[in-house]
Amino acid sequence: MTQPSLKQLEQHDAFIRRHIGPDDAQTQSMLDTLGVASLDELIEKTVPAAIRKQGDLDLAEAVDEQEALAELKALAGRNKIYRTFIGMGYHDTITPNVILRNVLENPGWYTAYTPYQPEIAQGRLEGLLNFQQMIMDLTGMELANASMLDEGTAAAEAMAMCKRQVKRNKSNVFFVDEDCHPQTIAVVKTRAEHFGFEVLVGNPESDLPAELFGALFQYPGSTGVVRDLTDLITKVHDAGALVTVAADLMSLVALKAPGEMGADVVVGCNQRFGIPMGYGGPHAGFFAFREAYKRSAPGRIIGVSVDSKGKRALRMAMQTREQHIRREKANSNICTSQVLLAVMSAFYAVYHGPEGLKTIAARIQRLTDILAAGLKEKGLSLTHDSWFDTLTVFVGGKQSDIFDRAIAAEINLRKVGDDALGISLNETTKLADVSELLDIFTGSASDHEHGLDLEKIDSELAAKGPAGVPANLKRESEFLTHPVFNTHHSETEMLRYLKTLESKDIALNHSMIPLGSCTMKLNATAEMIPVTWPEFGKLHPFAPADQTEGYREMFRQLEQMLAACTGYDAVSLQPNAGSQGEYAGLVAIKKYLEAKGESQRDICLIPASAHGTNPASAMMVSMKVVVVACDKKGNVDVEDLKAKVAEHGDRIAALMVTYPSTHGVFEEGIREICELIHDAGGQVYIDGANMNALIGVAAPGKFGGDVSHLNLHKTFCIPHGGGGPGMGPIAVGEHLKPYLAGHPVTEVPGNDPVNGTISAAPWGSASILPISWMYIRMMGKQGMKLATETAILNANYMAKKLSEHYPLLYKGSNGFIAHECLIDLRPLKEASGITEEDIAKRLMDFGFHAPTMSFPVAGTLMIEPTESEAQEELDRFVQAMTTIRQEADDVANGKYTAEDNPLHNAPHTQDDVMTDEWDHAYSREVAARPAAWLKHHKVWPASNRIDNVYGDRNLICSCPPIESYMD
Amino acid sequence: MTQPSLKQLEQHDAFIRRHIGPDDAQTQSMLDTLGVASLDELIEKTVPAAIRKQGDLDLAEAVDEQEALAELKALAGRNKIYRTFIGMGYHDTITPNVILRNVLENPGWYTAYTPYQPEIAQGRLEGLLNFQQMIMDLTGMELANASMLDEGTAAAEAMAMCKRQVKRNKSNVFFVDEDCHPQTIAVVKTRAEHFGFEVLVGNPESDLPAELFGALFQYPGSTGVVRDLTDLITKVHDAGALVTVAADLMSLVALKAPGEMGADVVVGCNQRFGIPMGYGGPHAGFFAFREAYKRSAPGRIIGVSVDSKGKRALRMAMQTREQHIRREKANSNICTSQVLLAVMSAFYAVYHGPEGLKTIAARIQRLTDILAAGLKEKGLSLTHDSWFDTLTVFVGGKQSDIFDRAIAAEINLRKVGDDALGISLNETTKLADVSELLDIFTGSASDHEHGLDLEKIDSELAAKGPAGVPANLKRESEFLTHPVFNTHHSETEMLRYLKTLESKDIALNHSMIPLGSCTMKLNATAEMIPVTWPEFGKLHPFAPADQTEGYREMFRQLEQMLAACTGYDAVSLQPNAGSQGEYAGLVAIKKYLEAKGESQRDICLIPASAHGTNPASAMMVSMKVVVVACDKKGNVDVEDLKAKVAEHGDRIAALMVTYPSTHGVFEEGIREICELIHDAGGQVYIDGANMNALIGVAAPGKFGGDVSHLNLHKTFCIPHGGGGPGMGPIAVGEHLKPYLAGHPVTEVPGNDPVNGTISAAPWGSASILPISWMYIRMMGKQGMKLATETAILNANYMAKKLSEHYPLLYKGSNGFIAHECLIDLRPLKEASGITEEDIAKRLMDFGFHAPTMSFPVAGTLMIEPTESEAQEELDRFVQAMTTIRQEADDVANGKYTAEDNPLHNAPHTQDDVMTDEWDHAYSREVAARPAAWLKHHKVWPASNRIDNVYGDRNLICSCPPIESYMD
Repeated sequence: MTQPSLKQLEQHDAFIRRHIGPDDAQTQSMLDTLGVASLDELIEKTVPAAIRKQGDLDLAEAVDEQEALAELKALAGRNKIYRTFIGMGYHDTITPNVILRNVLENPGWYTAYTPYQPEIAQGRLEGLLNFQQMIMDLTGMELANASMLDEGTAAAEAMAMCKRQVKRNKSNVFFVDEDCHPQTIAVVKTRAEHFGFEVLVGNPESDLPAELFGALFQYPGSTGVVRDLTDLITKVHDAGALVTVAADLMSLVALKAPGEMGADVVVGCNQRFGIPMGYGGPHAGFFAFREAYKRSAPGRIIGVSVDSKGKRALRMAMQTREQHIRREKANSNICTSQVLLAVMSAFYAVYHGPEGLKTIAARIQRLTDILAAGLKEKGLSLTHDSWFDTLTVFVGGKQSDIFDRAIAAEINLRKVGDDALGISLNETTKLADVSELLDIFTGSASDHEHGLDLEKIDSELAAKGPAGVPANLKRESEFLTHPVFNTHHSETEMLRYLKTLESKDIALNHSMIPLGSCTMKLNATAEMIPVTWPEFGKLHPFAPADQTEGYREMFRQLEQMLAACTGYDAVSLQPNAGSQGEYAGLVAIKKYLEAKGESQRDICLIPASAHGTNPASAMMVSMKVVVVACDKKGNVDVEDLKAKVAEHGDRIAALMVTYPSTHGVFEEGIREICELIHDAGGQVYIDGANMNALIGVAAPGKFGGDVSHLNLHKTFCIPHGGGGPGMGPIAVGEHLKPYLAGHPVTEVPGNDPVNGTISAAPWGSASILPISWMYIRMMGKQGMKLATETAILNANYMAKKLSEHYPLLYKGSNGFIAHECLIDLRPLKEASGITEEDIAKRLMDFGFHAPTMSFPVAGTLMIEPTESEAQEELDRFVQAMTTIRQEADDVANGKYTAEDNPLHNAPHTQDDVMTDEWDHAYSREVAARPAAWLKHHKVWPASNRIDNVYGDRNLICSCPPIESYMD
Repeated sequence: MTQPSLKQLEQHDAFIRRHIGPDDAQTQSMLDTLGVASLDELIEKTVPAAIRKQGDLDLAEAVDEQEALAELKALAGRNKIYRTFIGMGYHDTITPNVILRNVLENPGWYTAYTPYQPEIAQGRLEGLLNFQQMIMDLTGMELANASMLDEGTAAAEAMAMCKRQVKRNKSNVFFVDEDCHPQTIAVVKTRAEHFGFEVLVGNPESDLPAELFGALFQYPGSTGVVRDLTDLITKVHDAGALVTVAADLMSLVALKAPGEMGADVVVGCNQRFGIPMGYGGPHAGFFAFREAYKRSAPGRIIGVSVDSKGKRALRMAMQTREQHIRREKANSNICTSQVLLAVMSAFYAVYHGPEGLKTIAARIQRLTDILAAGLKEKGLSLTHDSWFDTLTVFVGGKQSDIFDRAIAAEINLRKVGDDALGISLNETTKLADVSELLDIFTGSASDHEHGLDLEKIDSELAAKGPAGVPANLKRESEFLTHPVFNTHHSETEMLRYLKTLESKDIALNHSMIPLGSCTMKLNATAEMIPVTWPEFGKLHPFAPADQTEGYREMFRQLEQMLAACTGYDAVSLQPNAGSQGEYAGLVAIKKYLEAKGESQRDICLIPASAHGTNPASAMMVSMKVVVVACDKKGNVDVEDLKAKVAEHGDRIAALMVTYPSTHGVFEEGIREICELIHDAGGQVYIDGANMNALIGVAAPGKFGGDVSHLNLHKTFCIPHGGGGPGMGPIAVGEHLKPYLAGHPVTEVPGNDPVNGTISAAPWGSASILPISWMYIRMMGKQGMKLATETAILNANYMAKKLSEHYPLLYKGSNGFIAHECLIDLRPLKEASGITEEDIAKRLMDFGFHAPTMSFPVAGTLMIEPTESEAQEELDRFVQAMTTIRQEADDVANGKYTAEDNPLHNAPHTQDDVMTDEWDHAYSREVAARPAAWLKHHKVWPASNRIDNVYGDRNLICSCPPIESYMD
C-alpha cells in the first residue's frame, strides 16, 4: 500500500485543524443534517452567485505554529529596543510579573466577552470598578468611566461632552493648550473639523479667547511644566465654558489633583501603570468627570447594584453599545473600551498600593531632580523651572549632536523645536541612566565624564524635598484608601485575588460564547505569545523609524493580507476600535468627496437594520442620516432605496450597509444596491462586522464596497479581552487611499496628516496586530476560506437544530443563513410570558453565556457559533435551548407559575441551592444542574439576577465600603 | 522634613516583600501575640545558641525582579541553541502551545501539591491516569505507574524489582545490553554496586550468561538498531530471570510493543512527547510492568475507586511516600514522581490523538529513511540495516572532520566509537535538515552539493513503506483507543479540557497548603519565567560544553549560593529528587569511608522519628539500619545514641538526622550528637527537609553535618508541580567533595564518574534550577534570612492560636517551635471518635488542603505555614480549625451522632447540597460553606470521601470506559 508523501506528513497546515472545531467526521455529519453533499454545495446555495468569489485567496500557503512563530520572531528581531526618554504620554513601565502571567497571558481573562451578562462577569466588573476608583482618586473627580481607547480620543470625547453640557453657550470655539501632546491636538482637531467646531491652539496664559465652549489643558505640560491651573480654570468657567485637563496618571500620585483645581473633566492614559508601550497600544484611556454629567458621558460606567436577593452586585450602569446608541442623537460612537488594559492597571495599583505608588513616583521625581540639578550645574538651562518627570533642555545649537549621541548610546530623546531636547524619566529609569544622560548632554562619550557627584546631589535633594514641584502643587489629599488597594501586596495574596476574580467569570476557556455579530472564535495561544515579546512591547510609538523595521514590515504584510481577504486595495491600521474604523472610513469618504468638489454631499443612507454605531459615526462627520427601510426578510428594501436615492440625488454621500446583513443572511441584491449608490455618485461603506462570513467566498472590495472596517477582534482572532482591546483598521479602494488618516509625529508611509488623525498612535494598537498576522499566516489561503465555510456550516447546523424548537426569523433564498442565526422568542413570550432575558439568564445555569439579545430585532436571540466550535459544543447548546423551550412550555401549560419557574428565577446561585427552605416547584438539581455535563464542570453565577432599575436609580460607581462585603 | 535617599527609593529589595506574606504591621502583631519584641528575640529564643549563626549570609544584596531576570537572561544568552541529532534518549520536541501556556506556565497546575487528598485533586489524577493508559498502550503492558524520575533510575528500579520478583533465583547477575544509553548503564551499575549485584554489559546475542536474575535491553538500541527481542526474552525467561526493556516512546507508535515480545518490565522516558530537553530534565521516566508485580512496583500508581456515594473517583492506589515506606524492608526510596511532566506528555497524546502521533512518527521515519537512502547512495555504510529514527554511520576516518563541519553548521551529532557518527532525527526535523546533513556527511559546505533528488527518494519510499523496520516489527496493535485520546483535538476543545481538570483541584493559587515538612511557599512568577526560555529549554544534555556556558556559569553560582546557605563547601546538582539526594549523600560517605580503608563501617543510625526515606536510602547502599530512640519531646535520646555508638563502634558509618527535627523543634543537643558520631569515626547526614527553618540562622555545614541534601522544591521555591518535579542536590564538606557522583558522557567539572552516577542527566533537572537561582538572587542575604525568621514566626503564631483548641505535641526549650507545628488529635479522637482523616476531609469544605497527617506521629497533624502566607490566611486556617474543634465537641457532647456530623460526612460536594432530601443534623450551609469567605470563593471537592479499601481491592489503573463517565 502506498504511504503518504513527506509533504503530506509534514503537516504545515496543522494549525487549521486546531483552529477549526469540527473534524472531518463532524463536518460530514453536519452536512448530512443540512442535506447538502459538501461544503462547496453549501456555499453555492448560501452565497449569491453574483458575488461569489472564484479562485483562491491571494495569500500564502499555511505554515505551522512553530514556523509562523519563527518567521514573526525574525521580524520582531528587526525592532531595536532602545531606552526611551521621549515621554509625550508614553513611558516605559514594569508590568508586575504576577499580573503579566495571570491576567495578560491568561485565557481566563483575555478570552472573556464584554460584561453585558453581569452575573457571570463579577470578576472583571470588580476589576473595572477598581479602575474607576483609582481614576477618581488620582484625578480628584467625582466619577470616572470604565476606560476609553486612548488619551487623544478621550480628549476628543471630552470636547464633545463639554459642548453637550453647555447648551446655552453658543460658541463654537474649543481652546487647546499648545503644550498638549501633539497627537492629542491632532485627534481633537480632526474631530472638531468634522463636528464643525473651531479649535484654537495657544498659550493658555495669553491666548484664551473670551468666547469658547471649552478648553483643554495638559498637566503636567507635554514639555514638562507643572503649573497651577486653578486661575485658568476659573477664567474659563467665568466664560460659561468647561475645562478638560489631560493629566499624567503617575504625576497625580505626587501632584495636586486637577479635580482640586476645579477641572470639569480629566482625561489621560493608564499606560504607565504597568501596560507595555507596545509601539502605541493598546492602553486604556481614562475619563473622569463631574457627577452632573453622568448621563452624557461617553463609554461605559460600572455601577454597584443589588441582585434579586438583595446582595451587592456589579453591572454596567451606563453602557454605550451598538444597539443602545440612540442613533440620530448620538455624537459619540464609542462602544469598546479597553477592559483588559484597564483591569491590568487597576491591578497594578492594587499590587503596589498607595505607598508603593508613592515610592515609584518619588523615585522618578528624585531622578529627574538629580538630572535637572546636574544639567544646570553643567550650565544647561531648562525651558521651565517646574517639572515632575520631564525636562526640556535648551541645547545651544547642539540638538542634532546630542540627539545622535543619544542614539549611539541606544537612547531615544524628544526633539522640541529647533534648539531643545526633551527628557522624560520613568519607572524603569536608574541612576546609571541619569548619569549617562548627563554624559550625553555634556558632550562626553565615556562614563562619568560629566564629573558630577550624583550621590551628593541626591543627599542635598533628600534634605529639601522635590525640587520641581511648586509647594502649593504637592499632593496633600489621600488616595486609594479603599481596602482593596491596601491588602494584596504579597505575590501570594495578589495571585489569589486574581484567581478569585477570574473564577467568577465565564470565558471561552469554559464554554462557547455564541454572541451574534461578535464572532467569539478561538484566540490561539500561538497568536497570543508574540504579544508579550519585548521586541513588540518595549517600543515607544515615536521611536525613530529605523528602530521599528520589524513592526513596519509586519504592518506591510498584514495590510497585504487584509487587502487580499477583503478585495480592497489599501489598508489603514490606525483606527483602534471598530467604531474608530467607521469614523475613519467616513472621514476618508468625506475628504474624497471634498477633493472632487462635491462637498454638498452630506447624506448618509443607513438601513433600518444597521448597528447603532453606523448612524452615530455618520453624525460624527456631520452627515445627515436617512434611514432606508428593510423588508420582512430583513433585507434592504430596494424600492425604498431607489426612492431615497431619487429624492436626495447629489446630496448622497454614502450608504452604510452591513454584509451579510445584521439579520444573518446574504442579501441577493447587494451588488445592485451598491451600483445604485455609485450611479448616484455616492460611496458604499460596507460594515465589516460580519466579515467572518465572507473571507474566501466573497470580497466586499469586489462586489461594490469602497471602504470597510475590519474588526480584528472578531474575524481576525484578537481576543475580546473582557470588553477590549479591539482593532478596527479600514480597507479601501484605490481612489480612497489618498485620503487615509496620517499622524502628526510619526510618518505613516503614504498617509498624509492633512487628512486628520483618528487615534493617538500612528498604527493604533500596534502590539496586538501580531495576533491577526499569526492567524492569517497559519491558516493560509486554504484555512481562511475553510474557516468561513465552517462558520457558515456551524451556523446553519445550529439553525436547523434550533428550528425544531424555535422559529427562525430570517433565511436566505435557498433556506440557508450566513454565519449567524436569529431565533424569534416573541411567540414563546406571548404564550408563556417568558422573556428573552429569562432565557439569557437561564443559559447561565447551563454554563453558557447568552447570545446577543434583541438585536437587531427586539424579542430575538442572535447566535453565532463561529468555526471554532466543535459539533459537540453546538449540540450541548442546542440541548440547553431545548430544555429551556420545554420549561417555557411548562409555564405556558401551567405546570409552573409565572413567578416560580426555573426561567424566571434564573440564574441560580450557590446561595439558592444552599438554603434549607426550598419552596420552588422544581428541584435544586433542575435549578442549577439542568444538564449532565454540569456534574463534571459547573461555573456558578456569582449573583442572582441583577436589578438594573435599582442600579440606575442608585448610581454608585466607586468601590463600596468594606462592610458591604461582609454578610 | 528629610526625604528618603534614592537608594531607599530604588527598592532593589522589592521582591522580598512580595515573597514574604506578612507586612511589617502583621509581623508586629504576630510578635505581640507571641510576647516577644522582635524577630531577633524570637530567633534567640528558638534557635539554640550553640548553633545560632552570627553575621550575614555570604550572599549578594537583593536585586529586584527585573534586574534578576536581566542578569539571568544574560547568562542564558551564553547558551547556544544548536540543532540536535545526538539522540541517546533526548530529542527536540514541540510542546503544543496550548499545553505550554495552560499547564506548564499556569500556577493552577504547577503550584499544586502531590495528590494525597484525592477529593481535591481529581484533575491531575485524571491527567496521571491518562499517562498510565498512554504508557500501557504504547508499551503493550498490563500496568504502568504514574512516572519515575528518568529513564536511568527507572531502569535501576526495574533491576531491583526484578530481583524482588525472582526470589528463588539466587543469581546476583544482571545483564545489560551494551547498546543501552551509556547514562542508563552508569546509573544501573551504580545502583548494582551498592546493592551488591554484578552487572554484565555485553551483546545480548552472544554474551547472555546462563545464570542471571534479570536483563536489560534497549529498544531500539542506543545506536539505532531495531531488533526482535522475542527470542532473547524467551532465553532469559528460560533461565528463570526477568527482562526489562528500555524503550523509546515515539518509536513504539510505529514498532511492535515490547509487551508483545514478552517483556516483564518496560521503562523509558516521556521527554519527546512535548517536554523540552532542558539540558537533561525534568522529564518523566515511565515504568510499565506485569500486573503480577503491582505490589512490589516502585513509585505511585493511580487507581480508579469509588467515593462514599458510589461515584467513580481516582486516587493514588499505590503510593510510596516518606512515611509509608516500610523502612527496614525497602529497597527503593523513590517518593516524588514527575507529575507535571507526566500530565504534560499525556496531554500531548490527548491533543494529537493516535492518528496525530502516527503522523509524527511516520514523518520522523520517512526523514530517517530518506537520510539513510541518501547516505547509502553516496557510498556511506550504516552499522545496522534497521532503524526507527537513529542511524549510525561509518565515516572512514573522517569522524572529526564531519563532526566539526556539523558544529560549524550549528548541528550536534553523536560520536560513536572512533569511526562512526550517530544521527537521531526528531519531531522538529525538516527535509532541509536532512539535506544539510547529507551535505555535511558527503563533505560539501554548500547547499544541495550532495546532488541527490530527495523528493524522488521520498516518492520511492512512499511506494514501499518504512525502510528501516523489519516487517514483523511493525506495530499492528491499536493504541490510545480510549475516547479521551480521540476527542480534544481542536485547541478550543483542548483548552476547555485542561480548564475542566484544573478547576477540580486546589493549588496555591486558591489557598494555603500548610503541608508540614513540604514547605509549600510562593513559587513566584519571576522565578518561573526563565524555565520556559528556549535558551534553557532547547539544550541537549550532552551538547558540547562550549555551547552551554550559560548553564555552567549558572550552576557554579547556584552551587556557591547553596553552599553559602548551608555552610558546606561543595554542592552536587545531579540528584533530581530528595530521595536521590539522600542516596547520593550516602554513596559519597561510603566511597569516602572506603577510601579511608574503613569499609567495615556498614551501620547507619537513624532516629525513630526519621522520614521513612532515610532507612530506605540506607538500605540502598547496603547499610544496616540501627534505630535510635527518641524521647517524649521527639528529640534524639542521647543516652540511647551513646549506647548504640558504644555497641557498634567502628561499624558505624553514618547517622542520618533531620534538623530541625521532624517533630518541628530545634533540638538543643544537635552539636553534641554530631560530635558523638564524629568521635566514633562516623559521618553525619543532616536531612535537609527542614532547611526552611535554618537559612541565615544556623548552618548544618557548621554545626556538625558532613552532607545534606536540599529539597529545592521546598526551601528554594521550585514548585511541587502537583507531585513533581523536585530537585535534591547535595551539599558536602570539603572531605566528601572528591566522592561526588560524576557522569559517563558529559564531564561534570571536578566530579569523577568513578564515583558512580546518580541520575541520567549530568545536572539532574537542570532547566528548573533557574527557579532557585532567581529566588536566592532576588532575596539576597537579608531576604533569605528574613524568610527563615518569618517562617518561624508564622509557625509559632499558628501554634499559639491553635493551641487554644488543640494540644501542641512538641515545643523547644523556651516554648517555641521551629517552622512547623504538630497538633495532637488523639485526645479529641478519644472523646469524640473524630479522626485525623475526618478533620483533613472537613478542611476541604473550608477550601483548605489538609496539613500532613499522622506523621511523624500517628493521630497528629503537622502544619507548616511558610513565610509566604500573610497573617490573614493563617487566621482563616485557625478559624477553620476552631470551627472543626467545635463540631468535634458537638459530637462528643451528643449534639451530633457519630454517623451524622459534618466531619464524618466531609468533604461535601455539589451532589450533596443538590439533593432534595437533606436528612442531616446540620444544614447545607454548615456542610459546604462553614465560613464566610466561602461565599466569595468556593472550590468544590469533586468527590465525596474516596474509598481506599474498595480501590485497593479492585485495582483498576487504566482509563475507565466512557460509560462510567455517564450518570
